[in-house]
Amino acid sequence: MIVVMKLEVSEEQISNVEEKLGEMGCRAHIIRGVERIVIGAVGNPKRDQAHVLELLPGVEKVVPVMAPYKLVSREVKGEKSCIDLGGGLRIGGEEVVVMAGPCAVENRESLHQTAEAVSKAGAQVLRGGAFKPRTSPYSFQGLEEEGLMYLSEAGEESGLKVVTEVINPQDVELVSRYADILQVGARNMQNYSLLRELGKQSRPVLLKRGLSATVEEWLMSAEYILAEGNEKVILCERGIRTFEGYTRNTLDLSAVPLVHSLSHLPVVVDPSHSSGDRRLVPSLSRAALAAGADGLLIEVHPQPEKAYCDGPQSLTPEGFADLMEDLERIAAACGRRVKKKAVLSPHGRGDER
Amino acid sequence: MIVVMKLEVSEEQISNVEEKLGEMGCRAHIIRGVERIVIGAVGNPKRDQAHVLELLPGVEKVVPVMAPYKLVSREVKGEKSCIDLGGGLRIGGEEVVVMAGPCAVENRESLHQTAEAVSKAGAQVLRGGAFKPRTSPYSFQGLEEEGLMYLSEAGEESGLKVVTEVINPQDVELVSRYADILQVGARNMQNYSLLRELGKQSRPVLLKRGLSATVEEWLMSAEYILAEGNEKVILCERGIRTFEGYTRNTLDLSAVPLVHSLSHLPVVVDPSHSSGDRRLVPSLSRAALAAGADGLLIEVHPQPEKAYCDGPQSLTPEGFADLMEDLERIAAACGRRVKKKAVLSPHGRGDER
Amino acid sequence: MIVVMKLEVSEEQISNVEEKLGEMGCRAHIIRGVERIVIGAVGNPKRDQAHVLELLPGVEKVVPVMAPYKLVSREVKGEKSCIDLGGGLRIGGEEVVVMAGPCAVENRESLHQTAEAVSKAGAQVLRGGAFKPRTSPYSFQGLEEEGLMYLSEAGEESGLKVVTEVINPQDVELVSRYADILQVGARNMQNYSLLRELGKQSRPVLLKRGLSATVEEWLMSAEYILAEGNEKVILCERGIRTFEGYTRNTLDLSAVPLVHSLSHLPVVVDPSHSSGDRRLVPSLSRAALAAGADGLLIEVHPQPEKAYCDGPQSLTPEGFADLMEDLERIAAACGRRVKKKAVLSPHGRGDER
Amino acid sequence: MIVVMKLEVSEEQISNVEEKLGEMGCRAHIIRGVERIVIGAVGNPKRDQAHVLELLPGVEKVVPVMAPYKLVSREVKGEKSCIDLGGGLRIGGEEVVVMAGPCAVENRESLHQTAEAVSKAGAQVLRGGAFKPRTSPYSFQGLEEEGLMYLSEAGEESGLKVVTEVINPQDVELVSRYADILQVGARNMQNYSLLRELGKQSRPVLLKRGLSATVEEWLMSAEYILAEGNEKVILCERGIRTFEGYTRNTLDLSAVPLVHSLSHLPVVVDPSHSSGDRRLVPSLSRAALAAGADGLLIEVHPQPEKAYCDGPQSLTPEGFADLMEDLERIAAACGRRVKKKAVLSPHGRGDER
Repeated sequence: MIVVMKLEVSEEQISNVEEKLGEMGCRAHIIRGVERIVIGAVGNPKRDQAHVLELLPGVEKVVPVMAPYKLVSREVKGEKSCIDLGGGLRIGGEEVVVMAGPCAVENRESLHQTAEAVSKAGAQVLRGGAFKPRTSPYSFQGLEEEGLMYLSEAGEESGLKVVTEVINPQDVELVSRYADILQVGARNMQNYSLLRELGKQSRPVLLKRGLSATVEEWLMSAEYILAEGNEKVILCERGIRTFEGYTRNTLDLSAVPLVHSLSHLPVVVDPSHSSGDRRLVPSLSRAALAAGADGLLIEVHPQPEKAYCDGPQSLTPEGFADLMEDLERIAAACGRRVKKKAVLSPHGRGDER
Repeated sequence: MIVVMKLEVSEEQISNVEEKLGEMGCRAHIIRGVERIVIGAVGNPKRDQAHVLELLPGVEKVVPVMAPYKLVSREVKGEKSCIDLGGGLRIGGEEVVVMAGPCAVENRESLHQTAEAVSKAGAQVLRGGAFKPRTSPYSFQGLEEEGLMYLSEAGEESGLKVVTEVINPQDVELVSRYADILQVGARNMQNYSLLRELGKQSRPVLLKRGLSATVEEWLMSAEYILAEGNEKVILCERGIRTFEGYTRNTLDLSAVPLVHSLSHLPVVVDPSHSSGDRRLVPSLSRAALAAGADGLLIEVHPQPEKAYCDGPQSLTPEGFADLMEDLERIAAACGRRVKKKAVLSPHGRGDER
Repeated sequence: MIVVMKLEVSEEQISNVEEKLGEMGCRAHIIRGVERIVIGAVGNPKRDQAHVLELLPGVEKVVPVMAPYKLVSREVKGEKSCIDLGGGLRIGGEEVVVMAGPCAVENRESLHQTAEAVSKAGAQVLRGGAFKPRTSPYSFQGLEEEGLMYLSEAGEESGLKVVTEVINPQDVELVSRYADILQVGARNMQNYSLLRELGKQSRPVLLKRGLSATVEEWLMSAEYILAEGNEKVILCERGIRTFEGYTRNTLDLSAVPLVHSLSHLPVVVDPSHSSGDRRLVPSLSRAALAAGADGLLIEVHPQPEKAYCDGPQSLTPEGFADLMEDLERIAAACGRRVKKKAVLSPHGRGDER
Repeated sequence: MIVVMKLEVSEEQISNVEEKLGEMGCRAHIIRGVERIVIGAVGNPKRDQAHVLELLPGVEKVVPVMAPYKLVSREVKGEKSCIDLGGGLRIGGEEVVVMAGPCAVENRESLHQTAEAVSKAGAQVLRGGAFKPRTSPYSFQGLEEEGLMYLSEAGEESGLKVVTEVINPQDVELVSRYADILQVGARNMQNYSLLRELGKQSRPVLLKRGLSATVEEWLMSAEYILAEGNEKVILCERGIRTFEGYTRNTLDLSAVPLVHSLSHLPVVVDPSHSSGDRRLVPSLSRAALAAGADGLLIEVHPQPEKAYCDGPQSLTPEGFADLMEDLERIAAACGRRVKKKAVLSPHGRGDER
C-alpha cells in the first residue's frame, strides 16, 4: 500500500501517518520525491483499514498495491484448474464444453426433445432454469422442484450432465440433489449468503458475472466460494451493462484472456443472454472460442416463438447443430476440441451419431 | 404494443402476425404507412410473449407501449404516498426525514454516542449495519443479532427509529423484531426471494437502487414488494456505476424528480455511499434536498479514522450537525422542514437543544 | 510513480527497472515488502514513458502518483478563479450567473423575444446556437453567421452577454467577433485543434464535459486552453452517458464539488441537455445551485412545441421566470445571489423590473 | 412514428395531436386500445419535429419507428460493400485485410523496419499516426507532415497501402496527398466539419467508433460522409468506455455481426486500443476474425519499451508474425483468407517468404 501525501505537508503529518501505519502492524518507508512525498507501507494491512488513512491530514490518497483476491489468483496457483464435472467430463483442459438447453424448463416433452437434439449435436451439458429470477413479479417464475426432476431425467436419458440455477441459500441442498453443476445467476453474484452456502458443498459452481461487476469483484465472489472450501468454480462471462441499447448487454470477451491471466479458474461464455438476439449468437460463440473460452452456455429451444421466456435469443435445434459444426472448425484452428465423442448412450442412441 | 414490420413484407407475413396476436388474446390494428407497415396490438399481452413476435418472418421489432409496473405507478395511484414509520413519524410529506449513523454497528458505546449526537442534531432515524454484505470474504461481516440489539437499544434511548439491512430471506423475521424499517441493499435489489419475503410482512422497506439498475428495474423490484401486499416502500437512490472513477459511484439526482413523476412512492438519497468521500457529502446532501428528496441517509461516525468500514465517507458528529443547519435552510427555501422538533427525550436531554 | 513488481522477481529484473528509471532521469527507491517489492521513482518522468515500464520483465503494474494536470489545479493556484465576462459581470464569485436562451437561433424575432424575457427574469447571459453539431446530416444545422448577428443584436438590446458554440478551429475568429463567451460542445471536448485555437485568443471559454469524459480528461482539456495562455475557462457539467435510458444523460452533480476541490476554475451546470426533459429542469437547476454551481445554462424557448431542436427540454419564458424565483431562494440559503440587479437598459426597459 | 397517449386523455387532446401531425404532413391513425390510445403517424416526419409532440397535453411519449440512417443501411443497399483500397486490394470481401504499424510515426528508420516486418508477415496496410490527438497538451503530438512523408515512403518500399489519422478539416487535402486511407479517430467521430470534408474527397475513410457512441450514432456519422458523396467508408470498432478498469476500453465484438446486419459497410476491429495491453491482443484479434470482422488494425513496434506512446499495447514484429499464423488458421476455419500472397517486392524481398 502506498500513501501519497499532499504537495504541502508537514513533518508532523508524516509522523502521524507513520504512527498510524505502526498501529496497523506496518512499517513506513518514506520516499522524498522531487515534488511530493510518498510513504510505502511494508506489512500486510487490511484494505478497509488502509482507506481510513485518507482521512489523516496531509494525505492525498491511498493506492492499494496488491489484488484483494488470493485463492483464485494465478500467483497462488500457477497452473490452470481443470474441473471434474463427473463421468469423465472435465472443463478447463483441451476440450471445450458446450452447455445447451432452454432458458426455462417448461414441460417434460419439450425438454427431452431439446436434450436429445443438443446431445446429438455434440453438447455435453444440459442447461435449463427451474427457479427463474424475473424482473417482473408477473412473469413465469419456473417449475421449481418439478423442473429439477425433468432436468435430471432428461440429462440421464440423453447422456448429458445438468447445470441449473439456484437463487436462494435454502435451496442449495435441494438443487444439488438433481443437478451436476449449480449456477449462480448474474443478479446473485454478490448474494454472499448464497455464495457461502455453495462453498460448503461439493458440486461445481458456475458463477455468472454480475451485470455491472468488475473483473475484480467477480473474482472476489469466486473467492467467497473457495474460501469456504469448494475449489470447483467455473466463471461465466455473460455480458455487462453499458449505454449500448441494440444488444441486451455488451459481451466483454476481453474478460476471457484477462481472467486467464489473473486466475487459474476456467471461463465459459454465454452468448445468448449477452446479446439477447439469436442472430448474433453464432458469431459471438465463434468469437468466444477464438478468445480462449473453456466452454459455452447456449440457449436452444425447439420452438423459440413459443418459449415462455427469452425466445428471441434461443437457437433452434437445427441452428445449434449448424453452429456446432462451425465451432468444431474454430476449436481445431485453436488446438482444441469441441464435440462429444459419439458413445453408446444407456438407451443405445449413441450409434446414430 | 406495436409491431414494426420490415420494409419488404408480404401479406402472408402480416397475416401471421395477426394470427399470433389473436392467440395472445389481442386484436391486430394494421397501419399502412408511406414506407412501412406497423401493427398495433389492442389488448393486454404479456411482455414475455410480446417479444417472441420478433421471431416471426417480416417483423423488424416489437415496441412495448406500456410501462411494466402497475401498483407503484402514478397512473394507478395519483396521490403521493406518505408512509408511517411509527410514533408519528411519516415520510413522503412536507417533512424531510434524515437517517444517520455508522456504516456498521461496531460496539455498544460507539453506537450510543453516535445516536445521541445525530438525534441532538435533528435526525429522526438511526442507521447502522448488523449484517454487512462485503465484497471480500476477509472483511468484517457485521455483529449480526448482537448488532441488532445495540441498534434497538440506542434507538430507544435517543428517541430515534431504526433502519438496518437484511440480506437473507431467512433473517427477515429476526431483523423485524429489532428494526422499524428494513433496508434492502443495492446488491440485493433483484434478490426476489428476499423481496417477496419483505412483501409478506408489515414493516416499511427502504429499497436501495442496484448499482446498475435502471429506474424501471428499480420500480419493478418495488412492485415485487407491493404485489405481495406491503405498500410501505421507500426508494433510495445511492449512486449508479459509471466510468467515472474519482467518485465511488455517480449519484443520479435526476432520478428523484423522475421517480416522483412515475411513482407515488417516496424517495430518499444516500450521498455517503454514492460518493465514497465525506468531503462531497454536504454538497450532495444539499443538492438532494433541492432536487426534492423526501429524506437522506447519511453515514456518521464518532471517529471515522477508526471505523471498521467506509470511514472515508463518514461525517463526524460535528460535521453532521453543521450540515443539518444547512439543510434546514435549504428545506425552508423549498417549502419543507428538516429537523426534528426538540422534545424531552426519556433522559431529559431534549431541553439542551 | 510507483512500480509494483511481480510476486516472484529476480534481482536482475529489479536492476533493469532501476536502469530504465535512470534513463528517464529518475532515481529508483526500492521498498522490500513482506510479500512484494515496489519501486518508487523519484524525479518527474513523463506519463507516456512511465507506462512502458509495464513491459519490463518482472513488472506487475505502474501506478502514477501525480495528477497529469498542472495549470488548472488547486495545488498550483489555491484561490478560486473569478472570471471577468465583461461589463462588470464575473463568474466564480458570490453571484451565480444564469445563462438562458434557445437551443438554436431560429430567427430574429423569436430570439429578441426570448432575450427580453430571460433578461427581465434576471438572466445575465443569452445562449443560442448558430453552428449546431447534429447527430443527423439531415437535421437543421444552424443559421451560422446570420445567427451570430442576431445573437449579438439581441444581447445588446436586452443588456445580456452572449455565449455561443464554435465547432471548427477556422471559425474561432468569426465567432469571437459576435460573442462574449465561446462555447465548446460536449462532442468537441477533445477536439484539440479547436482547444489550442481557443487558448490563443482572449475570450472566456465555456468548456462542456464530453459525453463520456472522466473529470480528469475534462480538466486535461481545460489544461490545453490554459497552456496556450488563456486562463478564462468555465467548466460546464452537462450529463454523462450511462445505461439509464429515461433521461437523455445522467447529470453528474458530484462533479461540482469534486472539480471545486481539484481545480480553481468555476463550474456551471446545464440541466437542459443532461435531462432532455423540461419537467426535470427546475429540480435539477435547484439541485445544481445547492451543490455549489457557479452558474446555470438553461434552454428557454417562447414556443417549445415549435422549436427546431430540443423543444422537449426547453422551458417557456413563464416557466423560466418561476424557476428564477426558486433559484433566488436557494441561492440565499447557500449565501449567494442569483438575479441581475435591475438596471436601466439602453431602451429604458430596466425600470419595469 | 407512434404517439402514446396518457391513460386519461380527452378527445380534445387527441384532436390536437391529429392537427399537429397534419401540420407536419402526416396522417394520424388512431388505435383505441383496452387501456390506452396510441396514434400512428402515417407519413415521413422529421425526427426533430416528432419529439416536440411530447410537449402536447395528453401525450405520454413518442416512439420513433424507423432508423434515422438511410444511405448506410442494408435496407437501401442489400449487398455488402466491397471497397477498393487501390492496387487491387479490396476490403469487405473474402479476404481479411490486416493493417499494422506503430501508434505514432517516430522516425524514418524505425518506421521502415516495422513496415518491412509487417509486410513480410502478411499485412497489407501500414498504419501510423502523424497527427496525434493526445489527452495531455504535454505529450508527443506527432511529426505532422514529416511523418506523412515517412509513411508514404515506407508504404511504397514495402508494398503496403497507408492508413493515417486526420484530425482537422483543414488537413484533409494534405493528408490525402500521402495516405491511401484516411482515418477518423474515436474522439472525432462526431466532428461533423471533418466528416463533411471527408465526404467531399474520394479516398476511403476508416471511421472509428467514438468512446461512448451507440451503434446508431456511429452509423449516423458514416451517413454524414456518404451524404456528401463518398461511399467508401470502413467502420472500425475500437472498444467503448465502461466501468471496467482492467482494460482500457471494453471491446464490443457484438458490434461486428450487428453492424453487418444493419449496414452494408465493412467493419474492422482494433484490438490494440481497445485493450491497451499487448497480452490481450492475440486473443482479441482471433476473436474479432471469428466474429466476422473484415479486417484488423494492430499496433506493432520494433521496441515497444521505447515507443513514444502506447508501448504497452504494441506487439513486437515477432509477436505479430506469430499472430498472423494463428489468424490464417482462424480465417480458413471461417472460409476466409488473411495473408497477402507472397509477391516480389521492388527490392526483391518477396521471395524470402
